[in-house]
Amino acid sequence: MKETYDTARKLMKGYCRVCPECNGIACAGQVPGMGGLGTAASFKENVTALGKIRFNMRLIHNVTEPDLSISLLGRQMALPLMAAPIGGVSFNMGGQVSEEEYIRAIVRGCKEKGIIGCTGDGVPDFIHETGLKEIKDAKGHGIPFIKPWEDKELFEKIQKVRDAGADTMGIDIDAAGLITLKKMGRPVFPRGIEKLGKIIQQASMKFILKGVMTVQDARAAVEAGADAIVVSNHGGRVLDYLPGSASVLPAISDAVKDQVTLLADGGVRSGGDVLKLLALGADAVMIGRPFSVAAVGGGQAGVESYIDKIKTELEQAMVLTGVKSASQVPGNIIFRPI
Amino acid sequence: MKETYDTARKLMKGYCRVCPECNGIACAGQVPGMGGLGTAASFKENVTALGKIRFNMRLIHNVTEPDLSISLLGRQMALPLMAAPIGGVSFNMGGQVSEEEYIRAIVRGCKEKGIIGCTGDGVPDFIHETGLKEIKDAKGHGIPFIKPWEDKELFEKIQKVRDAGADTMGIDIDAAGLITLKKMGRPVFPRGIEKLGKIIQQASMKFILKGVMTVQDARAAVEAGADAIVVSNHGGRVLDYLPGSASVLPAISDAVKDQVTLLADGGVRSGGDVLKLLALGADAVMIGRPFSVAAVGGGQAGVESYIDKIKTELEQAMVLTGVKSASQVPGNIIFRPI
Amino acid sequence: MKETYDTARKLMKGYCRVCPECNGIACAGQVPGMGGLGTAASFKENVTALGKIRFNMRLIHNVTEPDLSISLLGRQMALPLMAAPIGGVSFNMGGQVSEEEYIRAIVRGCKEKGIIGCTGDGVPDFIHETGLKEIKDAKGHGIPFIKPWEDKELFEKIQKVRDAGADTMGIDIDAAGLITLKKMGRPVFPRGIEKLGKIIQQASMKFILKGVMTVQDARAAVEAGADAIVVSNHGGRVLDYLPGSASVLPAISDAVKDQVTLLADGGVRSGGDVLKLLALGADAVMIGRPFSVAAVGGGQAGVESYIDKIKTELEQAMVLTGVKSASQVPGNIIFRPI
Amino acid sequence: MKETYDTARKLMKGYCRVCPECNGIACAGQVPGMGGLGTAASFKENVTALGKIRFNMRLIHNVTEPDLSISLLGRQMALPLMAAPIGGVSFNMGGQVSEEEYIRAIVRGCKEKGIIGCTGDGVPDFIHETGLKEIKDAKGHGIPFIKPWEDKELFEKIQKVRDAGADTMGIDIDAAGLITLKKMGRPVFPRGIEKLGKIIQQASMKFILKGVMTVQDARAAVEAGADAIVVSNHGGRVLDYLPGSASVLPAISDAVKDQVTLLADGGVRSGGDVLKLLALGADAVMIGRPFSVAAVGGGQAGVESYIDKIKTELEQAMVLTGVKSASQVPGNIIFRPI
Repeated sequence: MKETYDTARKLMKGYCRVCPECNGIACAGQVPGMGGLGTAASFKENVTALGKIRFNMRLIHNVTEPDLSISLLGRQMALPLMAAPIGGVSFNMGGQVSEEEYIRAIVRGCKEKGIIGCTGDGVPDFIHETGLKEIKDAKGHGIPFIKPWEDKELFEKIQKVRDAGADTMGIDIDAAGLITLKKMGRPVFPRGIEKLGKIIQQASMKFILKGVMTVQDARAAVEAGADAIVVSNHGGRVLDYLPGSASVLPAISDAVKDQVTLLADGGVRSGGDVLKLLALGADAVMIGRPFSVAAVGGGQAGVESYIDKIKTELEQAMVLTGVKSASQVPGNIIFRPI
Repeated sequence: MKETYDTARKLMKGYCRVCPECNGIACAGQVPGMGGLGTAASFKENVTALGKIRFNMRLIHNVTEPDLSISLLGRQMALPLMAAPIGGVSFNMGGQVSEEEYIRAIVRGCKEKGIIGCTGDGVPDFIHETGLKEIKDAKGHGIPFIKPWEDKELFEKIQKVRDAGADTMGIDIDAAGLITLKKMGRPVFPRGIEKLGKIIQQASMKFILKGVMTVQDARAAVEAGADAIVVSNHGGRVLDYLPGSASVLPAISDAVKDQVTLLADGGVRSGGDVLKLLALGADAVMIGRPFSVAAVGGGQAGVESYIDKIKTELEQAMVLTGVKSASQVPGNIIFRPI
Repeated sequence: MKETYDTARKLMKGYCRVCPECNGIACAGQVPGMGGLGTAASFKENVTALGKIRFNMRLIHNVTEPDLSISLLGRQMALPLMAAPIGGVSFNMGGQVSEEEYIRAIVRGCKEKGIIGCTGDGVPDFIHETGLKEIKDAKGHGIPFIKPWEDKELFEKIQKVRDAGADTMGIDIDAAGLITLKKMGRPVFPRGIEKLGKIIQQASMKFILKGVMTVQDARAAVEAGADAIVVSNHGGRVLDYLPGSASVLPAISDAVKDQVTLLADGGVRSGGDVLKLLALGADAVMIGRPFSVAAVGGGQAGVESYIDKIKTELEQAMVLTGVKSASQVPGNIIFRPI
Repeated sequence: MKETYDTARKLMKGYCRVCPECNGIACAGQVPGMGGLGTAASFKENVTALGKIRFNMRLIHNVTEPDLSISLLGRQMALPLMAAPIGGVSFNMGGQVSEEEYIRAIVRGCKEKGIIGCTGDGVPDFIHETGLKEIKDAKGHGIPFIKPWEDKELFEKIQKVRDAGADTMGIDIDAAGLITLKKMGRPVFPRGIEKLGKIIQQASMKFILKGVMTVQDARAAVEAGADAIVVSNHGGRVLDYLPGSASVLPAISDAVKDQVTLLADGGVRSGGDVLKLLALGADAVMIGRPFSVAAVGGGQAGVESYIDKIKTELEQAMVLTGVKSASQVPGNIIFRPI
């Protein structure tokens, strides 16, 4: 990956330093850009909360060839991993590659490696359109996320998603805090259970709500009919001083695990981090910024190499904790200090 | 705000670095100046204690246009926000703007934006006098604070406050530790409940006691007849190694919430920080140093921009936590780790 | 004090940086020198443990002129403060002032300000001899400490102490770990209760045991007949990874408070720190390194200024916590987080 | 030791900085090299977990000449100390000394000082072979560790160990996570109780399992017939985000103390650290990286000096905590904060 990182460091100059540890410190407050909002406390806490979680290493067992594959929302995946929806290459990543080159690397790299890439939304419209075009080219192998716009825009975009041939879509409901969009005349806002339910019904495909950080919202999402939720603080880009997703995931898992597919993201950097979130209750894990760095720095090949890296690390971590299958990760691989 | 901050950084050189995060580290011990006393542990702890508080983000609800206004001490305010009383431009801020220019920016900027600015006191007398003059010019729209001087000086100053047309005044009782004033022949000192009661009675206007950090003092303030108290460690400038105000506010709120108007300051830097203190029990929040920076760097316009920034952030934070009204902020928007 | 510190920084170059905060970080491992042993964890923890302790600020009360004086071991003192026994100017402080100049500044400065200075012991003998000479010159106003040598040397030194006219002496029993002394043919070692009892009896004057860090040793000291104990980890210079004295003081106070005079040192830098240790159970407090810096940098005048600084800070802290007398400091001035 | 460290710093340039405190920060991620894997969280946590442990200093007792010797696995040792198995001088340490010079310094230096050195294993084969040759030269005074290879290689190597005249051997079972070896066609992997039992039986000598970090594995090791286990996270080189060994040792000791010889390593840097692990339940302690630095920088003499340093520190720590014998270290010398 070294070459990919070196190239990314050059192309993303002023937007991302491609730090040895991607932890939100150097880029604090750089929104737009790749940083966390304000003091970046939410971004940093994602990494910190995950970092506090430690494994119970186990070596006296017979797990030598763990099964990394899972079945998720009716889809078979080689790894419990997705590329999180990120768009806006020009204002977030420096614009040295095009939105199209970027999202193609994500969608195709993921497809090639047996996982799935998500596409983003925003202003201007080509962010959304480019993502959908790539998903269409990939024969529906990709999950588009749209923002919680006013009904008219929202329903038009749901129609476009359907036209692109996707069988699953999502809304990042936590984008509702982006007052800047409102000031540009493109308001986004929260919805109650009833309104969300109608949106999900209207979409009539598998539906993911991204940005759930409380048991209450998780239960509300289930009631609204969501097929999956993503425990996420939006990479720390919508509200300063949120807990890390690893801190809230266990209670959410306890509350809704059997009723909804449970995804999570936030600070995941390695296969070990993936395994941690699975052990805390997630069915699969999204990774955000590192995929952007891999795509900008190495295109589709960079994305594939990054997936390979995660795969190797995940396999190693499963062997060293005695986990047979990524679809059944026991909570007791996590060390609990006395 | 960038231009305001750049200007402030020049004008306050040697007194305030206008750090990316105003946290008491770079200016530790610089009193006079803008720093905290001694090791600045009290200043730093204000920021640290607030920083540990994390939100429960909520997006599945119908709050899209939260009401930020409150009614406080009989006054309607556009935001639950006040500019804290700070004076002494020459020895605390570098003296590149005059005391008059400074306090005018505070008082008028706040009035223009529908909130209220406080004015300070100290030696020499023109600190106090300039503040009162500005409040008089603003038709009483401002709250003067005086220090706990000996009775003669104290009562004379209360009379001057009345002459200025203010309908509310305060004493920062925690200034009582300033032995330097004593050495200048201008002693300040604590008072018991009975003496404070007489002072408040004599003032015969709405009365605020600033510098309450314990349940005992909060109860004593109520008994003495105070209309409001400010939970505050004086920005860490009177005693080293105090807790942060966010650490003591909940217990004080539990004890006296229904009996007195509850204000708080200490390390508040954003609209999210305002919301935190409201959730912990405050009716409204004071901000200190950032107002000084805005006033020195941008005059009245700087103050107004800063208020706008806080307003936007507060609105966003309320939407993302599902809070309808700034006058009723539920405690459960705060994340409690299990 | 600025001039004193500047001079000390020059004279102690290579031995002490006279840091803004004297916390054991910059000089870690410099023994001989002014640092803590090994990683300096014990030194640093003294400062850290004290730093975690926070005050309950109180302003609604009638304490305006607190009484700082105490009676200790039959002696009236203006402040609950002593200069800790430190010797070895040449190898610990750079040797730019003589042992005699140094200890004279300590003993006389303390006497002048109504407190008491202690003198140290070590190899070569002139450390001990110079201290005793100064105490004799000061008409017994000083407390000599000797190390736990083999009986012969120990009893000879006790006789010399008596000859110097001191009415109180001590042993820093924690010096017993100094294997370097053993290798120089001058072994020091621990003693059990019985042996210590005989030493104390033989001395037939008020006797202090310095270096008590457990309830067990505190009780043993009482049983051996000590008049006073000093809770101290020897400034972190005898064993790495000890707790800070502020961490162990409360339990020791609970166990032996009424049976022995209780002193403490370790990381005390300000009048507020003095008040903290009193609130945790100490009758009086010793300060070490800062007295050395004051003595080297400013001689007797430097020592006196430092005492004045502590006095002013202590008075201010007592006013701001409502403490009437240094001889009765209530534990509830310490903030207990809920 | 200064000269040894200076030489090591030159010879290990780019591989080890020989930091004042060897804590995993500067070399994070440098595997191969001397660092911890990934973020080096496991390496750093070894040091951090040990650092949090503080001693109860005791001086009123009669322990003046503590006995540092122990009997371990039928062998008399001057100190409860072993040099951990480390190999691969060329790719881990810079290759400025030969594998042979290196391991000879370890094995002979340890033998000379009455303790025992372990030898490592890996690819290429001369790592293992050089170690065995040195042990043979030292008349069996050394413990070889081999990796958990496939059965054929494993049993061949066990035979070679026997040929070298060792009476004790070990497997570092935690090496099973090294997927790189697998990719080189030399797979290593975990074994269940039954398979391990057969390996141990086949070896028919005293057998140590290294890399136990849970009570479950400790019990499994006992069941498989191990004579000793080493609580170790492999210096943080096999899995990121493990707890420090000091954090898991007490529970493991509680579970299996009477059934197996209990060794531990991880972050041990001083005689005090050795004493801490003994107090937490270990019978003896291994040290890794510092022995490598001593061997590269000073050869056999460097190793001997390092052992002397540990010995002096251990003796001092035992005197200052009142511990009579290294074979019976009571748990109550550890400070427990209230």
